[in-house]
Amino acid sequence: MAVNSLQDLFVHTLSDIYYAENQILKALPKMAEQAKSEDLREAFQQHLEETRGQVQRLEQVFQMCNVPAKGERCDAIEGIIKEANGLAAEITDEEVRDAGILAAAQAVEHYEISRYGTLIAWAEQLEMDDAIDLLEQNLEEEKNADRLLTEIAEGDINEDASS
Amino acid sequence: MAVNSLQDLFVHTLSDIYYAENQILKALPKMAEQAKSEDLREAFQQHLEETRGQVQRLEQVFQMCNVPAKGERCDAIEGIIKEANGLAAEITDEEVRDAGILAAAQAVEHYEISRYGTLIAWAEQLEMDDAIDLLEQNLEEEKNADRLLTEIAEGDINEDASS
Repeated sequence: MAVNSLQDLFVHTLSDIYYAENQILKALPKMAEQAKSEDLREAFQQHLEETRGQVQRLEQVFQMCNVPAKGERCDAIEGIIKEANGLAAEITDEEVRDAGILAAAQAVEHYEISRYGTLIAWAEQLEMDDAIDLLEQNLEEEKNADRLLTEIAEGDINEDASS
Repeated sequence: MAVNSLQDLFVHTLSDIYYAENQILKALPKMAEQAKSEDLREAFQQHLEETRGQVQRLEQVFQMCNVPAKGERCDAIEGIIKEANGLAAEITDEEVRDAGILAAAQAVEHYEISRYGTLIAWAEQLEMDDAIDLLEQNLEEEKNADRLLTEIAEGDINEDASS
């Protein structure tokens, strides 16, 4: 896809995060299954539900751009998820693994926070008010998910991993 | 490397961000060269200097852990940088390219912010006070770099890209 305007770049990045969210939909059940901590497992399951809603919001933004919803292979999220899976496989202790999986999930959240922040700034420039509203909902959910993971880490996970 | 304790996981993640910072050292001059905006170019050059200092701080943290400073291939940063290069090559308009490069740099910053946040939380758990101090300096620099990029985007880059 040739990218010649800010509108093109917006759609390109939308396709990138759409691909990423769909990869996360596949990764989260596996991460939930690996988690020993009930709090962590529940956080992943809750975020799985949220991610389904986020994908639908992105499809609405594609509609607003008059282009079909289509993911574009996103090397960044592939790398982040590959690294998370590789690390989980290397960790033998279950409680240490929880700390590692949780940190990997926060790397995913931060990637998404950065992408939604960018898309919102571009949507403002392009005066796409309805898209801004949808993207801000996704951004808030990602920020909340990140905060919840920090709380869970500080609550028990890190302490359990060090004992 | 087998990861059986929080200390192991800390060193593993330290090796990951050490590899990432070294990749960023290689990527930043190229990004500065591609940037048309003087503000953006200067921001990349300033961050290149900061990144050199960050690598040295990480080497000090390795010393505190009594392990040699060694990077561990980090699929996440490889993916983020690969995506940035791919995107820059696809964009024909210079001003749109600046907006794309800037956004890619913010994805890099967010990855690092997430990693340093995690390392600091684990260093607190492991009572590594001197390491916390060094890692917090790196984290603050990444957050400032991200804020500066947002200011530059909102200043001119996004507007120029849409005109």
